[in-house]
Amino acid sequence: MRTFRLAMAQVNMTVGDLNSNTGKIVAYIEMARAQGADLVAFPELAITGYPPEDLVFKRQFVKDNLVKMHEVVKASKGIAVVVGFIDADTDVYNAAAVACDGKLLGVYRKMHLPNYGVFDEARYFKRGESCPVYVINGITIGVNVCEDIWYAGGPTVPQSRAGADVIVNINGSPFHAGKRTFREKMLATRARDNAVHIAYLNLVGGQDELVFDGGGMVFDPQGNVLVRGPQFEETLLLADLNLEPARAKPQPSKDKSVLEWQTKPAPVIQATGRLSSKPKPRIEHMVVEPRDELEEIYKALVLGTRDYVHKIGFEKVVIGLSGGIDSSLVAAVAVDGLGNGNVTGVAMPSRFSSEGSLADARSLAHNLDIELLTLPIEASFKAFLETLTPHFKDSAFGLTEENLQSRIRGNLIMALSNKFGWLVLTTGNKSEMATGYATLYGDMSGGFAVIKDVPKTLVYRLCEYRNTLGSKPVIPQSVMTKAPTAELRPNQKDEDSLPPSPVLDPILKAYVEDDRTYEEIVGMGYPEEMVKQVIGLVDRSEYKRRQAPPGVKITPRNFGRDRRMPIANRYKPY
Amino acid sequence: MRTFRLAMAQVNMTVGDLNSNTGKIVAYIEMARAQGADLVAFPELAITGYPPEDLVFKRQFVKDNLVKMHEVVKASKGIAVVVGFIDADTDVYNAAAVACDGKLLGVYRKMHLPNYGVFDEARYFKRGESCPVYVINGITIGVNVCEDIWYAGGPTVPQSRAGADVIVNINGSPFHAGKRTFREKMLATRARDNAVHIAYLNLVGGQDELVFDGGGMVFDPQGNVLVRGPQFEETLLLADLNLEPARAKPQPSKDKSVLEWQTKPAPVIQATGRLSSKPKPRIEHMVVEPRDELEEIYKALVLGTRDYVHKIGFEKVVIGLSGGIDSSLVAAVAVDGLGNGNVTGVAMPSRFSSEGSLADARSLAHNLDIELLTLPIEASFKAFLETLTPHFKDSAFGLTEENLQSRIRGNLIMALSNKFGWLVLTTGNKSEMATGYATLYGDMSGGFAVIKDVPKTLVYRLCEYRNTLGSKPVIPQSVMTKAPTAELRPNQKDEDSLPPSPVLDPILKAYVEDDRTYEEIVGMGYPEEMVKQVIGLVDRSEYKRRQAPPGVKITPRNFGRDRRMPIANRYKPY
Repeated sequence: MRTFRLAMAQVNMTVGDLNSNTGKIVAYIEMARAQGADLVAFPELAITGYPPEDLVFKRQFVKDNLVKMHEVVKASKGIAVVVGFIDADTDVYNAAAVACDGKLLGVYRKMHLPNYGVFDEARYFKRGESCPVYVINGITIGVNVCEDIWYAGGPTVPQSRAGADVIVNINGSPFHAGKRTFREKMLATRARDNAVHIAYLNLVGGQDELVFDGGGMVFDPQGNVLVRGPQFEETLLLADLNLEPARAKPQPSKDKSVLEWQTKPAPVIQATGRLSSKPKPRIEHMVVEPRDELEEIYKALVLGTRDYVHKIGFEKVVIGLSGGIDSSLVAAVAVDGLGNGNVTGVAMPSRFSSEGSLADARSLAHNLDIELLTLPIEASFKAFLETLTPHFKDSAFGLTEENLQSRIRGNLIMALSNKFGWLVLTTGNKSEMATGYATLYGDMSGGFAVIKDVPKTLVYRLCEYRNTLGSKPVIPQSVMTKAPTAELRPNQKDEDSLPPSPVLDPILKAYVEDDRTYEEIVGMGYPEEMVKQVIGLVDRSEYKRRQAPPGVKITPRNFGRDRRMPIANRYKPY
Repeated sequence: MRTFRLAMAQVNMTVGDLNSNTGKIVAYIEMARAQGADLVAFPELAITGYPPEDLVFKRQFVKDNLVKMHEVVKASKGIAVVVGFIDADTDVYNAAAVACDGKLLGVYRKMHLPNYGVFDEARYFKRGESCPVYVINGITIGVNVCEDIWYAGGPTVPQSRAGADVIVNINGSPFHAGKRTFREKMLATRARDNAVHIAYLNLVGGQDELVFDGGGMVFDPQGNVLVRGPQFEETLLLADLNLEPARAKPQPSKDKSVLEWQTKPAPVIQATGRLSSKPKPRIEHMVVEPRDELEEIYKALVLGTRDYVHKIGFEKVVIGLSGGIDSSLVAAVAVDGLGNGNVTGVAMPSRFSSEGSLADARSLAHNLDIELLTLPIEASFKAFLETLTPHFKDSAFGLTEENLQSRIRGNLIMALSNKFGWLVLTTGNKSEMATGYATLYGDMSGGFAVIKDVPKTLVYRLCEYRNTLGSKPVIPQSVMTKAPTAELRPNQKDEDSLPPSPVLDPILKAYVEDDRTYEEIVGMGYPEEMVKQVIGLVDRSEYKRRQAPPGVKITPRNFGRDRRMPIANRYKPY
């Protein structure tokens, strides 16, 4: 038995920033070498950032990424490195380079290309057809990429049969609530079934609508967790694995039901480089407790918001504070992600705003210690009405006038954004995005929709969670208890237009996320008319969602790349 | 030799409208039978409309579509029918049902699933694995779907080898300029190479950003065009084919380079139903001249706009008329698509608007015989400035104040939209969408962006083309000749901010549509600084495009499903 020290760099990359990404990779190689690691792994497409989307079609981009991959190979002096990059011959591949002591040992090409949900990998990549193992410092290593490990019959099978002691599985696996637990169970099963160590490494950080949660893990061949790293943080994870060099290589399977490449013995590639022979005092393995659900979601919102703002080159944000629960949560997330000095609130009271709303906005701003501007909309509202009234003639006050107020606010906040270079964070939640209970070019105006994937009932729970942090609650109690209202006409309440959230949200989840049929949803115990109303609202609001800003995905299906519905669509599910 | 009468229903379907689509199919079956046709074909996914996108994930939708398919089979009394639908077992398939005299003869499942450009078929469908031929009234028919015919080694090969006399290829093939010619050449080659008749049938109509141009064609085994139907119109195309029944069936190829299913003989399925034995007086084949490029594009814009407006349930539209070339073209398209009574223009002059602009808007409205409302923005602009000035302090008039005016216009036109139920058509062209020369929530506010895929230079050419139609020009000469301006500050000209269109447009095409590298574009003869400026503008405007309304795709790559770029993207191509 000998000890193989494995390092996993759980890093936050920026799509397209090849120089900075490569610089970070080289710095982490130094750190891993200083720690006496035999091998350091980096996430899927670490060099380009993930997902690079249509950048993959730019030949120059792929070429530049290849140059960077060779820089990383050069930097692998005295250590082995596994790093995600785009490989290219006449096609392009989502690949992992395996380098050892300054030489490129081989390239593994991802075999299972996800093309569902938010993923479009069949659009970009050709699948790999070989799954070699690498012998490094006497230890046999299999490398594969993300989706590859989710298939029970994936490359882990022939790699283990070829004698791999460790499978290094590098990922760009986006977060949604509940995925971590599921992922851990799957990986434990995979390790046990193949009697192999599995090292799972994931990106960390936000990219447009996605948040990668990190959460790297190492499993022993019995499926026990040896290492469990933190989520939502950059870190270098270390594991000392006790391995038997020159493990016997069982014969390949004769099972005809598996694909051809699974029945062929995996090629064995032998590294010749000299690795660090530093003495290795035994290290403590990090095994963090998984975060609870609300903490996990809140952290995802904070990281997703911070990274979006910073990665597109902003520092400061501005948020319309209505005194309601949604804008309160968004403000708290923004302050936690960016710092209170980088967040400005704007109250934009109208003739219909209550004193209580303004007071709530003020006490929230006070609690979060952020600046609050007050820009009344009455003067602009009057001017618009004067311009429009001759054309409207005697028509009654209605949706037009409600939207007008919301759009004046959108215009004011965008003026602040343009003048001061503040990114506008919008405050609509998923229940509103689903039902179209929002004004296009009004409260939907902005660069990032922080909670667009958070259902209203979860907004409340997250506010309660946030109020348990720190020395005192930041979101005023009155915000948590009053009935939600858009305050666009006298005595308006959300529940005049929509079913109450505790009823609305499960219907929305069933219809939007779980593709339940009308009959199934009625069968869950909801009144037929209500189910029809909700389905109708969802289907008729597609045009609004198509023009909404991106926001953090936290559910298994968000409104974005995850859900691609036609706008012109006359399907009636009832 | 005998005559086989083939009918092709070039029909306009609505995504999700299973009842209406099926009703139209049944009506066209009647028409074809009345014409003595042996077989009538319908386009790809005719029952569901194309592309159904994520509706495919709704089990009820797939079930409902299967019920409709069986209704079509029942309606096939005395005739054979080929119709596109979604087939399902444990997976789902993009399929064609082949029915004869009230019985389902078989189902062909599409083998080549496009997953590039606007297509996501690998997201939805499993590929088929068999390509049978059907013997109907003694004639051997091969059926395949769209992409299948684009591959030289596709199912047409084994189907022809199995003795098919005719390949019926049903399509949902979206338009872009130049595609028709390319398609005709490819089909002629395919017919010649396989010595088989090819009947190409395509959907017609608009669906969100796509326009299907129809343009059905029939080729003889020498690659000659026997039938060429019109583009952009519904029609029933007829072809009398002189065929030899019981054609000899050559042996399957032993060529190892082709896929396994290509080397197996295609299964032969024999129809037993009785087809119409009406006497068939010889018919004239329709062979229309292909439209020229400008006419084709103009028709695509008209059809795409009409269908979007109608399919989402609107009748009337409203357009902001600035007196500029873009809004003039959009108004002409709208009038041609919807009728002058359904189009309202709005002039929204500001303190910076010239008399000439307003006069041009008026004469355009007069020429098109549409109503023109005038809503000055000065009062609202003043009110906004009064509200904002205390916060802006002594900052100079700039982009903020320019955007403010554009957003006031957006707000006014949306108020008209909300009050009167008019859909707002936006007027930005592709050069503006590419460079971000547009105001989000301002002139970008609206439901449909008619010319968002039309580069500025093509806008001029289309206006000239439109002015050649009818008895007199509709777009005033002064609109065609004056320098483009946004009129958001004194003496503003587009060319103060952007290279002139004849230079800008080729750079944009090279970068956006052709994925040319910086060096290649400079190599085309453009100054380095200019190329950098344009690339920078394109890359930094992704966030705007993501919130833009859909519009008609007329180029090989539009801004929409065709181009999926990250917003947070730090790649610098120079």
